[in-house]
Amino acid sequence: MDQVQWLDEHEATAWRGLQFMQMRLEAALARQLSAESSLSLQDFMVLVALTDHPDGRLRAFELANTLGWDKTRLSHHLKRMSARDLVEKQTCPTDRRGYFVAVTVDGREAIRNAAPGHVATVRRLFLDLVSDDELETIIRVTSRVLDRLSEDADGQR
Amino acid sequence: MDQVQWLDEHEATAWRGLQFMQMRLEAALARQLSAESSLSLQDFMVLVALTDHPDGRLRAFELANTLGWDKTRLSHHLKRMSARDLVEKQTCPTDRRGYFVAVTVDGREAIRNAAPGHVATVRRLFLDLVSDDELETIIRVTSRVLDRLSEDADGQR
Repeated sequence: MDQVQWLDEHEATAWRGLQFMQMRLEAALARQLSAESSLSLQDFMVLVALTDHPDGRLRAFELANTLGWDKTRLSHHLKRMSARDLVEKQTCPTDRRGYFVAVTVDGREAIRNAAPGHVATVRRLFLDLVSDDELETIIRVTSRVLDRLSEDADGQR
Repeated sequence: MDQVQWLDEHEATAWRGLQFMQMRLEAALARQLSAESSLSLQDFMVLVALTDHPDGRLRAFELANTLGWDKTRLSHHLKRMSARDLVEKQTCPTDRRGYFVAVTVDGREAIRNAAPGHVATVRRLFLDLVSDDELETIIRVTSRVLDRLSEDADGQR
């Protein structure tokens, strides 16, 4: 890499703004959940990913991709969540090496209980400060970047 | 909280897009750094926060606020980075309970060596996919949200 194309001031402001905003939002959301619910932010994100699907389950590798976690991290985290009856493993009839991760009745109740306080914090710290046009831009950018990340993940498999 | 104002589809798409994009970007950037440099993504973000300041140092509580880390997490992480001579603690003449965290010569070298590969990945997975107008929007939104988070942190001190 002889010629590095460094970030200009504009790019650096946007990129760092996004990184630091996100680190601090995560910290605030984690604090709120740990004070007012039985879930960590990681538990919450696993349950969001699962309950986003109509049947409340995902193939383990899809869940790992969605969260950006590697197999080891996913497996450790799911073990702890299974022990608390929030999720369960289900075997996959068409792929004997793969498995599904499914939200349980207790998991649905836990996210339902945690959601009101979480949503209020998301509104107060983020959505209340973003206009409709800005929301549109965020949707466009994030979906483009998520597609790129998926191509990348496919390339690595 | 009797009346929860749930996210509409639009808000949910933007918010979840942002969260999952960020989790996956972080994972990709962490992988790249661990494969090609001596720094973890956390080390890298600490060094970015410090080297963003002309004198390469920050009060510990400011660094903690910037990263969204609590005192314990910051202190553990800095202990490990100090042991590798990447940062050093400096006493603060005006506040005997506070201290500065400063990047060292080795720390500057480490981030300089890690930066080219990191920047290339940030371009490939994010900046190349974002137009100038979209970058503007991201700068506006993130600075607004960061201000709100700082008011929040001030309220908690």
